[in-house]
Amino acid sequence: MKRVITLLTDFGIKDPYVAQMKGVILSINAEAQIVDISHEVGRHNIYEAAFILLSTYSKFPRGSIHVVVVDPGVGTRRRAIVVETKRYLFVGPDNGVLSLAVEDDGVSKVYEIKNSLFLRSHISRTFHGRDIFAPVAAYLSLGISPKYVGPEISFRDMIKIARSKVGIINDRTFRARVVYIDNFGNVITNIKASMIPREIHNVTIKFRDKELAIPFKRAYDEVPRGEILSLINSFDYLEVAVNQGNAAKRLGLSIGDPIIVKFS
Amino acid sequence: MKRVITLLTDFGIKDPYVAQMKGVILSINAEAQIVDISHEVGRHNIYEAAFILLSTYSKFPRGSIHVVVVDPGVGTRRRAIVVETKRYLFVGPDNGVLSLAVEDDGVSKVYEIKNSLFLRSHISRTFHGRDIFAPVAAYLSLGISPKYVGPEISFRDMIKIARSKVGIINDRTFRARVVYIDNFGNVITNIKASMIPREIHNVTIKFRDKELAIPFKRAYDEVPRGEILSLINSFDYLEVAVNQGNAAKRLGLSIGDPIIVKFS
Amino acid sequence: MKRVITLLTDFGIKDPYVAQMKGVILSINAEAQIVDISHEVGRHNIYEAAFILLSTYSKFPRGSIHVVVVDPGVGTRRRAIVVETKRYLFVGPDNGVLSLAVEDDGVSKVYEIKNSLFLRSHISRTFHGRDIFAPVAAYLSLGISPKYVGPEISFRDMIKIARSKVGIINDRTFRARVVYIDNFGNVITNIKASMIPREIHNVTIKFRDKELAIPFKRAYDEVPRGEILSLINSFDYLEVAVNQGNAAKRLGLSIGDPIIVKFS
Repeated sequence: MKRVITLLTDFGIKDPYVAQMKGVILSINAEAQIVDISHEVGRHNIYEAAFILLSTYSKFPRGSIHVVVVDPGVGTRRRAIVVETKRYLFVGPDNGVLSLAVEDDGVSKVYEIKNSLFLRSHISRTFHGRDIFAPVAAYLSLGISPKYVGPEISFRDMIKIARSKVGIINDRTFRARVVYIDNFGNVITNIKASMIPREIHNVTIKFRDKELAIPFKRAYDEVPRGEILSLINSFDYLEVAVNQGNAAKRLGLSIGDPIIVKFS
Repeated sequence: MKRVITLLTDFGIKDPYVAQMKGVILSINAEAQIVDISHEVGRHNIYEAAFILLSTYSKFPRGSIHVVVVDPGVGTRRRAIVVETKRYLFVGPDNGVLSLAVEDDGVSKVYEIKNSLFLRSHISRTFHGRDIFAPVAAYLSLGISPKYVGPEISFRDMIKIARSKVGIINDRTFRARVVYIDNFGNVITNIKASMIPREIHNVTIKFRDKELAIPFKRAYDEVPRGEILSLINSFDYLEVAVNQGNAAKRLGLSIGDPIIVKFS
Repeated sequence: MKRVITLLTDFGIKDPYVAQMKGVILSINAEAQIVDISHEVGRHNIYEAAFILLSTYSKFPRGSIHVVVVDPGVGTRRRAIVVETKRYLFVGPDNGVLSLAVEDDGVSKVYEIKNSLFLRSHISRTFHGRDIFAPVAAYLSLGISPKYVGPEISFRDMIKIARSKVGIINDRTFRARVVYIDNFGNVITNIKASMIPREIHNVTIKFRDKELAIPFKRAYDEVPRGEILSLINSFDYLEVAVNQGNAAKRLGLSIGDPIIVKFS
């Protein structure tokens, strides 16, 4: 049965761990269409993985199965879960990494993976990605209902990570945070496009001892090469960027940094 | 419909941008066979991407759709195009990145992408790879004729990058350039195999204040480990290499460097 | 015909070499399911590739075709071979890189690739991955019997690499070696799970002038963050790790290092 299974891990691309997961999946469902989301998540960085998943899950066909293995607690008592949402299935450890995406799509049911029928016969204590999450995802991709993987658990019991909230100082001024920095050095904040007032021209950001007025544009190339700008990015969040340059390095900003943002 | 779509970008492999494109494609054509050419093109390096595309496009099945997103002008007036060549379709920005490959295969028609039917409903100003190029490629992979994406434009109007030409000093001496340096440090010149005289034994290269006689061989391992050689490489160009070593570092050569090459 | 072809190379992911191999394969068998094992093997590191293949080949569906291109002798007299084992086919250079995996699965037949029907019409002297191994794998994936690729050769004639053997000092003390270090810095030894005595609590390792007693656990998270442990890893070998840290860096161990291991 042709169905998309996506993989998001912190395994890197040198070691054969991702390939082992793919081998296990294809041994169960030779028709599975496996797509890598990323394997370069910072090691054990649940927040980064949760944000990447949130920004990407909904671009895939309805019914796709999203597998996330960023799993510092592998082999301990942390639960392994399947979450059924309005349009997708999610498979991974119950450590918060799935929580932003599943809340965004709307959770229907959460199941704890317990049924050994759907697991590899020997379960290592160090690699549940291969021995639990991959085979479960493969069986789900064959059309098996998630209710067979194990007992339903309450959504309230599932571990969540705090979504970094925007503080409203006034209708043009917000307490925000850097939630992601991409490969280009673009600085992505947690201010959603819908919160940004209309007809603004400038964004002033304050962080540490700095204050900076930045033109608000629609495309990178609307300022000269090497100059700073802000815009609504492809995730639909406020982003600070440098045209063909690296804004994070220029400003010295890192993921998690608090900033105050004023629109004018 | 099973059809190959290749992707060539400067997005890197950590961020989920490539995965978002794949999700969009598979949402339109679940049967598309997506193949990564590279996502590690130097940021905004149109020349590098153009060379990689030129060296690789023709290895894919006839009818494959090649999507390139190296796009510093995203969100500005630069056009989005589909080029139909003798055997392939190419999709990308009209900034020259497609030009070497499409000229090589022979251009039939060029279309400007305008028809919003084939685009995502909300077009970001920063990520046309996901919102324009991916969906257009997916619809083309379903067999939709490129003529429906928008008005035909003249090939003459398409932006081209200059193919670095070889200067002929005499039938054994050429003014050439370094056009690519691969991961192994092999230095690839723009001298085609067909320009190289028969029965030669040595290649002398001059650059800056250096002059170097290099044995001309057929395989890397025909010189001892660590020694320099030249050969016709798998792209069918003259290459300078070090057996199991890094020629670019050894010689201090970079992409774009002019060299004089004499065969003897 | 739908069949898995895996690729394991030292080509890196920037250059288009891997994509060229995929293009060649899909031009012959559009239904092939190509899976990357790794392209980040250390350049020309036959031992590393052999270990990765050994640890991963058996996770794929029976009948999968494993292609390995770590090939410092490309273009010389080294043979190109297909090995048929109990459950799989392996394609690559006869330089030892296939030997650990094929011995592990049990060799049926070895063939030297000679039949030009299954090769690209022009064979470069520098890229047999694209011109020999990829097309041969693609034809095999169509169901063509390996006996047609060329003459059978004796398994004894095939080049093998020495599997690093464990020396037995007594039933609790072994002369071992570091055989792999993964992306997380986990140090993998050549001591198989089956050699480890039951009911042990500690592992003492000696190397150079150091001696270190390390708790033996079942999961990384059974020691506090930042502390060292040993366990049986997902490859089923003894591994030394640091919970959420890098054991190889902490201990100064590299692939190939000899260690003495004592269980207590």
